[in-house]
Amino acid sequence: MNCSSLGIGLAGLGTVGSGVVLALERNSNLICDRTGGQVKLEVAKVLVRDVAKVRPVNLPIEKLTTSWQELVADPSVDIVVELIGGTTDAFDIVAAALKARKPVVTGNKALLAERGVELFALSKEHDTPIHFEAAVAGGIPIIKTVQESFIGNRIHSITGIINGTSNYILERMTTAGLEFPASLGEAQALGYAEADPALDVNGWDAAHKAILLATLAYGFPIDPAKVHVAGIEQVRPIDIDFATRLGYVVKLLAVVREHPDCSVELRVQPSFIPKSHILASVHGVFNAVAVHGDAAGESLFYGRGAGQDPTASSVVADLVEAARSLRQATGHRGFLPYRESGVLLPVEDTETAYYVRFDVTDRPGVIAEVARVLADAGIGISGTHSPVKPDQPDAEFLDMVFLLHTCRFGLLQDTLDKIEALDCINSKPVVFRIEKL
Amino acid sequence: MNCSSLGIGLAGLGTVGSGVVLALERNSNLICDRTGGQVKLEVAKVLVRDVAKVRPVNLPIEKLTTSWQELVADPSVDIVVELIGGTTDAFDIVAAALKARKPVVTGNKALLAERGVELFALSKEHDTPIHFEAAVAGGIPIIKTVQESFIGNRIHSITGIINGTSNYILERMTTAGLEFPASLGEAQALGYAEADPALDVNGWDAAHKAILLATLAYGFPIDPAKVHVAGIEQVRPIDIDFATRLGYVVKLLAVVREHPDCSVELRVQPSFIPKSHILASVHGVFNAVAVHGDAAGESLFYGRGAGQDPTASSVVADLVEAARSLRQATGHRGFLPYRESGVLLPVEDTETAYYVRFDVTDRPGVIAEVARVLADAGIGISGTHSPVKPDQPDAEFLDMVFLLHTCRFGLLQDTLDKIEALDCINSKPVVFRIEKL
Ligand SMILES: NC(=O)c1ccc[n+]([C@@H]2O[C@H](COP(=O)([O-])OP(=O)(O)OC[C@H]3O[C@@H](n4cnc5c(N)ncnc54)[C@H](OP(=O)(O)O)[C@@H]3O)[C@@H](O)[C@H]2O)c1
Ligand SMILES: NC(=O)c1ccc[n+]([C@@H]2O[C@H](COP(=O)([O-])OP(=O)(O)OC[C@H]3O[C@@H](n4cnc5c(N)ncnc54)[C@H](OP(=O)(O)O)[C@@H]3O)[C@@H](O)[C@H]2O)c1
Repeated sequence: MNCSSLGIGLAGLGTVGSGVVLALERNSNLICDRTGGQVKLEVAKVLVRDVAKVRPVNLPIEKLTTSWQELVADPSVDIVVELIGGTTDAFDIVAAALKARKPVVTGNKALLAERGVELFALSKEHDTPIHFEAAVAGGIPIIKTVQESFIGNRIHSITGIINGTSNYILERMTTAGLEFPASLGEAQALGYAEADPALDVNGWDAAHKAILLATLAYGFPIDPAKVHVAGIEQVRPIDIDFATRLGYVVKLLAVVREHPDCSVELRVQPSFIPKSHILASVHGVFNAVAVHGDAAGESLFYGRGAGQDPTASSVVADLVEAARSLRQATGHRGFLPYRESGVLLPVEDTETAYYVRFDVTDRPGVIAEVARVLADAGIGISGTHSPVKPDQPDAEFLDMVFLLHTCRFGLLQDTLDKIEALDCINSKPVVFRIEKL
Repeated sequence: MNCSSLGIGLAGLGTVGSGVVLALERNSNLICDRTGGQVKLEVAKVLVRDVAKVRPVNLPIEKLTTSWQELVADPSVDIVVELIGGTTDAFDIVAAALKARKPVVTGNKALLAERGVELFALSKEHDTPIHFEAAVAGGIPIIKTVQESFIGNRIHSITGIINGTSNYILERMTTAGLEFPASLGEAQALGYAEADPALDVNGWDAAHKAILLATLAYGFPIDPAKVHVAGIEQVRPIDIDFATRLGYVVKLLAVVREHPDCSVELRVQPSFIPKSHILASVHGVFNAVAVHGDAAGESLFYGRGAGQDPTASSVVADLVEAARSLRQATGHRGFLPYRESGVLLPVEDTETAYYVRFDVTDRPGVIAEVARVLADAGIGISGTHSPVKPDQPDAEFLDMVFLLHTCRFGLLQDTLDKIEALDCINSKPVVFRIEKL
């Protein structure tokens, strides 16, 4: 088949950028065939910081530039792919592309979660789409699924394991009994974690993705400042032991849920989930997203959440989408928020059961004191435990954990503040959610 | 938002047809919002056999007709939805709609697998798409995923549990120890099986779906006569016991796989799959499809494979797709086979390990005789067993099972023919695959 080419302006030639070049080299004839000869994609221009760097892909030097203005303005560039990361230069590139009416493809969840309001406004104003399949769950087509396949569904909930690095770390803590720092070190050595793994382990990478999913499902922009996010840095082997004994697995879970009053719950934190639930079987760096729609019912989408090839797979799918729209001169088919605003459920009003760990000074009465404060607040206790070594049943303990019945998170927080003020309690209690899935 | 309407001509108001009417009643405002005001869908005309029948949905009598010609020709019908089933009237309706340049949405896998060549030719000739998300795996968006999200991937394999009824039956045989007829009866009583469950249990419903998936992935039409299909009618509790003891689960598996020479393996049959594989956790009437792409890697898509609401969810997604293309006057965005032909790997050339059950007359030497024929053919045996009651270790046995190493299926068949000719063997051996996944 005879495909005429569309030019790609590729901003970034790192892990994902190189993957896109390789995927197109490998499969561009296939793509041309599959689109009935409509779409042939060619890398026209590439933005990097360092033109001299040796790279795993071979591109003629004249295609490289260090000027994003040049990339966007190049007349041979029809579509701009942003894969440099960050929220500053990346913002400028995407904004400039939209103003030039060049469709954008990006894998940058931080950019869209933090500055999506401005960018989607530009997308609307200039009738030019932003495609972002690669921004959530790497090779899993969850964006298209929520946006297109579930378009006839009211979305009840989206629950996901959407940060592979933290999933890997928690799993190694579980199977090898590692402490958090050792497990993180392992993930870094294997190249799973970023050089700066902060966003992976503090929950914000997952939160950025959850914000995008919630915006897709409910149509309104979400202020990241209002989202409750906790990372996995506080998880310790003792927590995992306890979870295991009770039939749970500890996962960093992103929860998006619509309540009957149409408010949207959105939170990311380490959670106990039942071992029998399918999400508990998501191992290593894999991702999975469970979507519950009013018509489709329960569905689950599972696959590689990051990495060069899987992420490139999603970028290429978006490129074809963008290319078809250009070829067919259709209007904007990309996503746009369709509601000015919506109600985010305050985290204080969310309700689950909880696991709480206290750092205590052991002395007779400490359990009674804590239990009394909980009782006064009307919070039910389903179990308590203070781990001691089997051969030292009378040793002093340092940790005390409580399992608490479902209550408002706000009530829990107020009550924990009171408990923290007791003089047997040495630091801020650590709280994980126990999820009903 | 102010959406102008598109009219749907709905052929069939049974399980799925009613589901579509209900889903649109429930969520058409949401769809209008989500499409930025482009798409409002209205049921304009409905084809049924019996206009007088009492139905779960309320439609004004003047919208009902028993003439499909009237339905297709009605000027208020912009898109035709075929949900009557079968391959005769359904063919005429779809063909007529395409000729009238009205996009088609269908959930009819039998129609497309058996007569897709003719229909896709009409689709091309009249530049009018056929959408068929609902035809495979009900509410799971597997068609869109393979066609659009994986467009930049060479598809290595697609492996699926895509008939919920047989999955339910096999599971009940496993967990409750039921014989096949009792388990089928239960599925029928629960409304899972069709009144005529033939296509469910003989593997052809799954095969029709697998044919569609293979055509999507590899682009050429597939002759159903060349596809190897075996159903679950021959599965007995003894097989399931044996599988369980060895760490396998028995599933009706559809396997589509591209070989290095580009030939495509396509088969449906009861298979032993490792208990630890994620497909082994697909319970009840749920479906799951594992897709392995060269870029995306391993992915899995899980959800409800049938039923009113999930299937309607997919029909509605296709309707929106069709409606957007009409609104935006784009060219054909639906699927078209893009290769005239391709090579289907003859089933004789497929290779797996096998489980074989023989109906034998017990006498000293029977195992030796069978083993000798296998040895002469060069087929390795990894185990053999003849179930007898624990309290009657010397009783005569009737069944003898062998686990065989990987070999060409053609070699196995020839060898089994020879074994069948032995006078200790009473009927055709029963063969299941042991899959490496
Ligand atoms: N890696 C993954 O698995 C993955 C998965 C999903 C989404 N993403 C997202 O994809 C994006 C890219 O990730 P990555 O892993 O490919 O990053 P990376 O390996 O660090 O590559 C970044 C690339 O961008 C270039 N670059 C960075 N800042 C630049 C600037 N200011 N001006 C010009 N060029 C600049 C770099 O140039 P030099 O090569 O010259 O230094 C490099 O080629 C990020 O938004 C990330 O969140 C990544
Ligand atoms: N059921 C599922 O879960 C499911 C899932 C995926 C795909 N599908 C596919 O969807 C299609 C419909 O399935 P279904 O379960 O909805 O079937 P169904 O409940 O039997 O309904 C069939 C409908 O079509 C009408 N009809 C049948 N033959 C007709 C004819 N020759 N002329 C006019 N009207 C005719 C019937 O009219 P009356 O009502 O007047 O009898 C009835 O309303 C099939 O292709 C099936 O394979 C079904």
